[in-house]
Amino acid sequence: MFSKEDASWMARALTLAGRGRFTTSPNPAVGCVIVHEGELVGEGHHQKAGEPHAEVFALRQAGPRARGATAYVTLEPCSHHGRTPPCAQGLIDAGVARVVAAMVDPNPRVAGRGLAMLQAAGIRAEAGLMTAAAEAVNVGFLHRMRTGRPFVTVKLAASLDGRTALANGESKWITGSEARRDVQRHRALSCAVLSGADTVLADDAALNVRWHELPASVREQYPEAGLRQPLRILIDSRNRLHPGLRLFAVPGPVLLLRGRVSGGFGPQVEECVLPLADNGKLDLPLLLDELGRRQLNQLWVEAGATLCGALLGQGLVDELVLYQAPKLMGSGARGLFELPELTAMDAVPRLEWRDCRRVGGDLKLTARVIN
Amino acid sequence: MFSKEDASWMARALTLAGRGRFTTSPNPAVGCVIVHEGELVGEGHHQKAGEPHAEVFALRQAGPRARGATAYVTLEPCSHHGRTPPCAQGLIDAGVARVVAAMVDPNPRVAGRGLAMLQAAGIRAEAGLMTAAAEAVNVGFLHRMRTGRPFVTVKLAASLDGRTALANGESKWITGSEARRDVQRHRALSCAVLSGADTVLADDAALNVRWHELPASVREQYPEAGLRQPLRILIDSRNRLHPGLRLFAVPGPVLLLRGRVSGGFGPQVEECVLPLADNGKLDLPLLLDELGRRQLNQLWVEAGATLCGALLGQGLVDELVLYQAPKLMGSGARGLFELPELTAMDAVPRLEWRDCRRVGGDLKLTARVIN
Repeated sequence: MFSKEDASWMARALTLAGRGRFTTSPNPAVGCVIVHEGELVGEGHHQKAGEPHAEVFALRQAGPRARGATAYVTLEPCSHHGRTPPCAQGLIDAGVARVVAAMVDPNPRVAGRGLAMLQAAGIRAEAGLMTAAAEAVNVGFLHRMRTGRPFVTVKLAASLDGRTALANGESKWITGSEARRDVQRHRALSCAVLSGADTVLADDAALNVRWHELPASVREQYPEAGLRQPLRILIDSRNRLHPGLRLFAVPGPVLLLRGRVSGGFGPQVEECVLPLADNGKLDLPLLLDELGRRQLNQLWVEAGATLCGALLGQGLVDELVLYQAPKLMGSGARGLFELPELTAMDAVPRLEWRDCRRVGGDLKLTARVIN
Repeated sequence: MFSKEDASWMARALTLAGRGRFTTSPNPAVGCVIVHEGELVGEGHHQKAGEPHAEVFALRQAGPRARGATAYVTLEPCSHHGRTPPCAQGLIDAGVARVVAAMVDPNPRVAGRGLAMLQAAGIRAEAGLMTAAAEAVNVGFLHRMRTGRPFVTVKLAASLDGRTALANGESKWITGSEARRDVQRHRALSCAVLSGADTVLADDAALNVRWHELPASVREQYPEAGLRQPLRILIDSRNRLHPGLRLFAVPGPVLLLRGRVSGGFGPQVEECVLPLADNGKLDLPLLLDELGRRQLNQLWVEAGATLCGALLGQGLVDELVLYQAPKLMGSGARGLFELPELTAMDAVPRLEWRDCRRVGGDLKLTARVIN
């Protein structure tokens, strides 16, 4: 059982974990707080892959006062030698008396071994405090550890009546500037942004993170110098994208999936032949497997009705984020998804609302696909 | 200037006013609190047209303690003889020292005369405390007083991608039971429900208020014995509705607007020829004028994409309530509104989000049309 004090320290550790969300990929964001006789003696969070884990920062700060203390960590301490030595050993060496983890790490290389190592050394080690909040901080990492694929979020922007563009294609801008800033934040939180040639060509979209367009609250904790660009993945089956596009002029890596490799792009562009399924169409499950192998935790999809519909129709979407503008475009305007025709309400794909909030003049609605 | 105490007493008066919302039509819902030397000595609310106003109940309860007291009323006291004597005179006769009204009554028969009457009698009378909340309690009445027409709310139920029915017409049920209970609450708050023959025929819809389907919170304050059925107004230009429908079997008045009068309906049905505009189509502005003349404050529209689109396209809608289910129906499914084709985003009708909340498994989104 955990006390109210335990919960309050873990809340602090979760706040610290959150600070790493923009930069720790492919690692999870983790926070750690060390408390000795009711007093905070050390705290820290993981900042970047290859750099020390949260526990190391917190133990350094605590020094000798870690002896007999309780360590609160938002994810089970690691038990394996990666780019850094195992944190469980660090906690044992420092002489902590108790370790509280928000959750067990599903990483097959940890998966309870960290807690077991601590317990074997006589430390009272338990997991399961504020687990839901800890899951939320690392939704992408945890999903990849459990399924081998990134967590897929499809971004949509539509009018109140579910339309993305007028019949003539005009769509600039349906949502307001605050919603577009929020999209920048989601791109910054993602390991990769997936889009299609149509979307890029329609607006000469760059699909990168523009630091100055991030919300002020993000800029405060995420300095421009440390900006990490997500990998931009483009589906270009008919080889329509060309090196002159803005997409290729801005900094950041690009994975270009095309009908055939043509060359002529800069060094930041990796050009590949897109994986095809037996039916001759893009093999989306294979693509997601490959993105998982590349250690991409979170995939943010900004694409048209066809690609979004294909991902949804094949059950490959985990979450939808819909920015809904208080506008009406009418039934002649373009819709959100191309789906195979359904003939019974029982067959309609179902999700679960997770959040609704105002973002400037628009609404932001978040739904999870129920598996 | 008003004090914190003033605001707290007015909040109480607004709570009382809210209790009349289901029953005072065509009158406004009004609450009154009388406070003598910091002590509540009387309170009341208007319950039903023809019965005493809020001030009368509160003064009765206060008795001689009303002398020198402050009266808080959510709407300016009336100054005219209607079915009851003027409340301003009642307050003067009781000897109150001060009257605080949340807002001036826009009713042309009052419009400041109530306050003036009080002031002429030496009473300190002011208006303008918690006005927004007072406006919200009587949105329909106030709109009718200002424009001569009812406040028009269009109800919509759609999937996440803005679809109301599958291509084959199937739509039962998009939203869950809590959303349907909430619709019952809106019908109960409305003076009239407007629908079309298609909607009625599709589901043999009764469009009445079913007390047992109201949310429990409403049933507690609105006993079944006092249930008031809104007038159901049906557009049936091709005379397709027939006396055998469920609509005509349940209690409550019906206004049937048809291509020609055929007769054969029961005494609760008023059959009229629908008003046509010069273009041969239903004259919706004329209809709303007539409904205003009939003292209908709030009109709740549950109709298909054509009637809803016509109301919207002619600028006759004040508010939209969209129940949005976490389901995906695809671009082949039916849309929310038939609107004339738009070719520029600047021409797109704009609204303003007022509220978003969860209702069971669905979202309820409320938007106001900007005039």
